[in-house]
Amino acid sequence: MKAEIIAVGSELLTPAKVDTNSLFITERLNEVGIDVSVKTIVGDDPAVLRSAFVQAVARSELVIATGGLGPTDDDVTREAAAAALGLSLDEDVRIVEAIETRFASRGLTMPAINRRQGQVPRGAEVLPNPHGTAPGLWMEHGSGVVVLLPGPPREMRGMLEAVVRERLARRAGPDRLFRRVLRVTGRSESHTEEAVRSAYAVWAGGPAPIATTILASYGQIELHLTARAADAAAAEVALEAATADARARLGLDLYSADGRTMEAVVGDLLRARGLRIGLAESCTGGLLASRLTDVPGSSDYVEAGVVAYSNRIKTSVLGVPDALIAEHGAVSEPVAAAMARGICDRTGADLGVGVTGVAGPSGGSDHKPVGTVCVAVVRPGLGEPGRRIRTFRFLGGRGLVKFQGSQAALDMVRRWLLETS
Amino acid sequence: MKAEIIAVGSELLTPAKVDTNSLFITERLNEVGIDVSVKTIVGDDPAVLRSAFVQAVARSELVIATGGLGPTDDDVTREAAAAALGLSLDEDVRIVEAIETRFASRGLTMPAINRRQGQVPRGAEVLPNPHGTAPGLWMEHGSGVVVLLPGPPREMRGMLEAVVRERLARRAGPDRLFRRVLRVTGRSESHTEEAVRSAYAVWAGGPAPIATTILASYGQIELHLTARAADAAAAEVALEAATADARARLGLDLYSADGRTMEAVVGDLLRARGLRIGLAESCTGGLLASRLTDVPGSSDYVEAGVVAYSNRIKTSVLGVPDALIAEHGAVSEPVAAAMARGICDRTGADLGVGVTGVAGPSGGSDHKPVGTVCVAVVRPGLGEPGRRIRTFRFLGGRGLVKFQGSQAALDMVRRWLLETS
Repeated sequence: MKAEIIAVGSELLTPAKVDTNSLFITERLNEVGIDVSVKTIVGDDPAVLRSAFVQAVARSELVIATGGLGPTDDDVTREAAAAALGLSLDEDVRIVEAIETRFASRGLTMPAINRRQGQVPRGAEVLPNPHGTAPGLWMEHGSGVVVLLPGPPREMRGMLEAVVRERLARRAGPDRLFRRVLRVTGRSESHTEEAVRSAYAVWAGGPAPIATTILASYGQIELHLTARAADAAAAEVALEAATADARARLGLDLYSADGRTMEAVVGDLLRARGLRIGLAESCTGGLLASRLTDVPGSSDYVEAGVVAYSNRIKTSVLGVPDALIAEHGAVSEPVAAAMARGICDRTGADLGVGVTGVAGPSGGSDHKPVGTVCVAVVRPGLGEPGRRIRTFRFLGGRGLVKFQGSQAALDMVRRWLLETS
Repeated sequence: MKAEIIAVGSELLTPAKVDTNSLFITERLNEVGIDVSVKTIVGDDPAVLRSAFVQAVARSELVIATGGLGPTDDDVTREAAAAALGLSLDEDVRIVEAIETRFASRGLTMPAINRRQGQVPRGAEVLPNPHGTAPGLWMEHGSGVVVLLPGPPREMRGMLEAVVRERLARRAGPDRLFRRVLRVTGRSESHTEEAVRSAYAVWAGGPAPIATTILASYGQIELHLTARAADAAAAEVALEAATADARARLGLDLYSADGRTMEAVVGDLLRARGLRIGLAESCTGGLLASRLTDVPGSSDYVEAGVVAYSNRIKTSVLGVPDALIAEHGAVSEPVAAAMARGICDRTGADLGVGVTGVAGPSGGSDHKPVGTVCVAVVRPGLGEPGRRIRTFRFLGGRGLVKFQGSQAALDMVRRWLLETS
């Protein structure tokens, strides 16, 4: 079954706002095996919206529209959809009464304008809206269906889930889509592709065929595996086998196959080892600590962080010797290592991370250009086996250098924890 | 002049990826007074893509498509656009030679498949691509124009800017759009709207009419003012007057009218006062420091940050008395104030911020539910005038509580700096 999504709202045609409702809708439809083939984003223009409905209905069995169901004059989705299907609109007294009751429950009188939300295309079924005044509408035409949903995500989401569960799952046929996201770091997109490409055909050729998409961004690559099967168990077996194959090909570079973020993976490893971590950050400016503490329960293993932006703080709070900074510069491997040791000494953390670098846009030199970041991971008392130190050269602006620096630091902690366990 | 955008790529129809090229394109088109009336997102299906072009060309004078110009079989934009306009495709030998040269410059032979990128609809003009192999195409039909651009942002952006500057600005007519973003914090969307709504008609009624859009997210509200005028000076005057009016209505709640973020506004105020700031963070976990250090040049005024996630660190590193935590609890105004004082005492910072709260999802109580955040701003040595302490109750998940806590802390610093200057 093919679906189209129509997102309605003039604000979605400005440079400031992107339609995200359709991502949620796509995910829910995919779960019952329905693919989305077109998305159309239109403003509050009745003629354009009507033509979008006419087109969509001609092309696709299922059309889901969001937005434009409010009470004001620029809410034109009801009228446009009815016109496209050649249906007249009648007032549904029960809807108007429900809206009146909703207002009354807050001690208010329903404004006359809200009457418009009681207009229903002839033959349409009303989908109740527990979170707002705009009801949804379900309209069948021949073998096709048009569904109108409100635009506010809180109102749209529950209604869409009910529609999928109670109405669309039945119609969609036996196949479902099952997804797994493999997250990779420490190699480029092309090196990732090189390692797994020869497996694509094998994965696609099984009884639960898997389609693979590769998505690259700074500091991480994602492989999205999507299996299509009627049988959830068969899909799980196929995804499990493909994941194991990818793991064999990518080794430790594959850091997550179950949706966990890098910071969650590192957190779970720290918790399992019973180690508390301390973060000494210069160029990442607190981002490393902030990412680790984004994870619920991270107080179990995050001991402390120090943002040592000035040399004075590196010296006074972290105990980095002045002479070390004078000899090697603040952005250097010895200083990163001293910061990592210092945070352990000062806070009692079991494992220390030091990050120092040039985030830019200024401050770079020929020898240490913008994007140079030194990272040290130190477990005091273990000598050399307890130390990892590396220097990176990242591309991109200040924000990207900070992110990649934090990602590289987390990844070094992860590898150290895995390789020494 | 009305424009439509067609974004091509099956990955844009998955739950994982949103079309962002169109935001950039919309911004550039708006600058020369061209509105976007429809956006269509389609996969690699030639029939669907052709029907999208047929529709778009019938509705709009300008159609801009991105993506699907690569060398492989699933790159079908050239063929679909040519078919929609009834044009045949011919090979342009110069394009093929340019691609061969590009490969040769890296010591490579052009794969035969890249020949496809030399296919040009009859009568189309070729737009050079300095960053990749896929050239863009400019096709006129009657009074309308269809422009095909590559999908990778790096290749698309420069080409689009050249097209707008050299070709579209002329055709677009005299009007341009001029935008200003007003950022507001400390009041809800409806309280913001209440304060400015009565001005909308005045702003819209001037010689350079201004349209106003309000966008709300957690912790901040944006008012987008868009003036339409042939004369840049007239637009600037109108936007300046509307901004002054908004400032009179919103007072200090309006924190930015020139595109600066909250962290940049606070940074500029700190620099102007010659004050260095120290951050003592519990529940925000480093996010406050990270946001401040996102701003280039922030080493001028960020002295140090401490992430004190455990009570032990609050005591040992920040010098918060054990008894204070025992008496009031770690999430309390006295502890926030002691953290703010402590970071100044330990690091020599001139102004200290302490943030302690319950980010959730666990750790809440009836008395201090998830979302409770205490913030203190302390300038040592000034007594009461140097202290601001507040407790907030934020809604939303862990990430949103962290963000709103950091936003509230920055805003308290901003107001203190403005009110004591």
